[in-house]
Amino acid sequence: MESRSPEIASLFVAACSGDRSALARLLSLIERGGDDARTVGRLVYPKTGNGYVVGITGAPGAGKSTLTSALIGHIRSLDQTVSVLAIDPSSPFTGGAILGDRVRMQNHATDAGVFIRSMATRGHLGGLSLATSEAVRLLDAIGSPCTLVETVGVGQVEVEIARNADTIVVVVNPGWGDSVQANKAGLLEIADIFVINKADRPGVDQTRRDLEQMLELSDFSNDAWRPTIVTTVGTTGEGAAGLWSAIDEHRQYATTDGSLAKRRDQRLRNELRAIIERRLEHRAREICTGDRWEEIQNEMLSRSRDPWSSADEMLQGILQ
Amino acid sequence: MESRSPEIASLFVAACSGDRSALARLLSLIERGGDDARTVGRLVYPKTGNGYVVGITGAPGAGKSTLTSALIGHIRSLDQTVSVLAIDPSSPFTGGAILGDRVRMQNHATDAGVFIRSMATRGHLGGLSLATSEAVRLLDAIGSPCTLVETVGVGQVEVEIARNADTIVVVVNPGWGDSVQANKAGLLEIADIFVINKADRPGVDQTRRDLEQMLELSDFSNDAWRPTIVTTVGTTGEGAAGLWSAIDEHRQYATTDGSLAKRRDQRLRNELRAIIERRLEHRAREICTGDRWEEIQNEMLSRSRDPWSSADEMLQGILQ
Repeated sequence: MESRSPEIASLFVAACSGDRSALARLLSLIERGGDDARTVGRLVYPKTGNGYVVGITGAPGAGKSTLTSALIGHIRSLDQTVSVLAIDPSSPFTGGAILGDRVRMQNHATDAGVFIRSMATRGHLGGLSLATSEAVRLLDAIGSPCTLVETVGVGQVEVEIARNADTIVVVVNPGWGDSVQANKAGLLEIADIFVINKADRPGVDQTRRDLEQMLELSDFSNDAWRPTIVTTVGTTGEGAAGLWSAIDEHRQYATTDGSLAKRRDQRLRNELRAIIERRLEHRAREICTGDRWEEIQNEMLSRSRDPWSSADEMLQGILQ
Repeated sequence: MESRSPEIASLFVAACSGDRSALARLLSLIERGGDDARTVGRLVYPKTGNGYVVGITGAPGAGKSTLTSALIGHIRSLDQTVSVLAIDPSSPFTGGAILGDRVRMQNHATDAGVFIRSMATRGHLGGLSLATSEAVRLLDAIGSPCTLVETVGVGQVEVEIARNADTIVVVVNPGWGDSVQANKAGLLEIADIFVINKADRPGVDQTRRDLEQMLELSDFSNDAWRPTIVTTVGTTGEGAAGLWSAIDEHRQYATTDGSLAKRRDQRLRNELRAIIERRLEHRAREICTGDRWEEIQNEMLSRSRDPWSSADEMLQGILQ
């Protein structure tokens, strides 16, 4: 497997000098996982730590893709470049959203200052989160100054992926209960910025009050960042500049007070832990096959050995 | 730890002869987990396989507890005994439901033919599923002919617990979309029996049609059980007899065509796999402490070693 290393190394060199098809191939290797993905990760890792990562999450239908597209437009108007990872942990059967996203972002597709890529689940959900971290690092390493990570839903994996960002943007819509839903999904506690998108609809003030009230109830220490609330209309681009300013404001705050560095360290620690769990899980799957596995299962099914003792028997000699 | 074995053995003997406080103590040991729970499991396991398990699940507010209470009333009217495990995987902060359940089932509390017990999360969610299986086996081993396992919500853990039953009852209410919600939660595919509870409200026929239609779309082979639909009014007990007949009908069907035995074997296999995963997870948590852990983390944070290589380094010498 290591024999592909030179090829991967040249792909990386090419990607660093702006070759998009090389970049796309490296991202595919990361998405696919396995030894090649590890080779990419090893190459990339020492060159990371400069790019900024913005996570964009919220309930399906909140207009995240349209908002992201508007944000890209604003960033480009400032002559800055940007990368976007659109993450869909849902099953292939409900993958329509991704297609829709791609269509909505189509107007940026031919812009050399914008790189957009969708990533979907290939098997293991935890794997998607780890692959996303690797993909973000690759974009960082090749010199992308800012990556927007947009997740499709608000499940556990989506929240986990969104929280791996430097600035976390949570998108809600006007209307009673929407902010309550965001709270339920645990989004209140991870948000650095709330966006009330579709702000041309009625109920913006009420939703702002709901959010303010939830923030009142939260216990922010005096010097901690207090989430800001901005309003946008993704379809017209209204408010995109305000959102970008809010992101910049949070970035400066977090850089100055040291919370950015702390968050990044904690993120890597969590990732290491997740990798270890995944390695052990993988080992467990290997264990749960073969003759010995069948034999022990049969002893259990005939009630001559209980499940916990059977597990001990299987793990004997594997775990030290 | 094994020194408590004789004490646990006498508790088990006492529980088998009808001592409820001994039974309650054994269930507490199972709930608490650890070595004592394993001792109970080892004692209990060879004596299992006779009791029947009915899982009752559905969205919060569907009236599961009231329905369960009505079902208990009917079972007692037939002079049969029954055990109930009410499972709440939600956090202690939202534990009100359990208290409500207990109140609703209160009229059976002094009946020697009924045993009711609530189980809540103690830490790990996967642990609750495993503990529930152990608790069900304990009730089986002491001679309870039938255990009703009622889960509070329809999250992943609840569905996992409900599917560990011999007959799975899914409770919905009349009204547009309720059955669609059940479908979303993956309940359609696990249900052996659908109950339209609160059938004194409007919309019963529509809900029945929704369910029939969903079943039409499913691909049942000719000789497979086709989920039955019954209607109940939990508050009055109406339909409880019909539900019990439906459960009995499914039981006879599954016993005759061999699907009960197959389901029980598969359940044990899944449990063994879950225990192995849990053991490895536990080992992972043990690994992720100590000086060596700190050292490797620091190498990773200073970008001199990437996360995957760091994980390999940590696991070296632990995994064979």
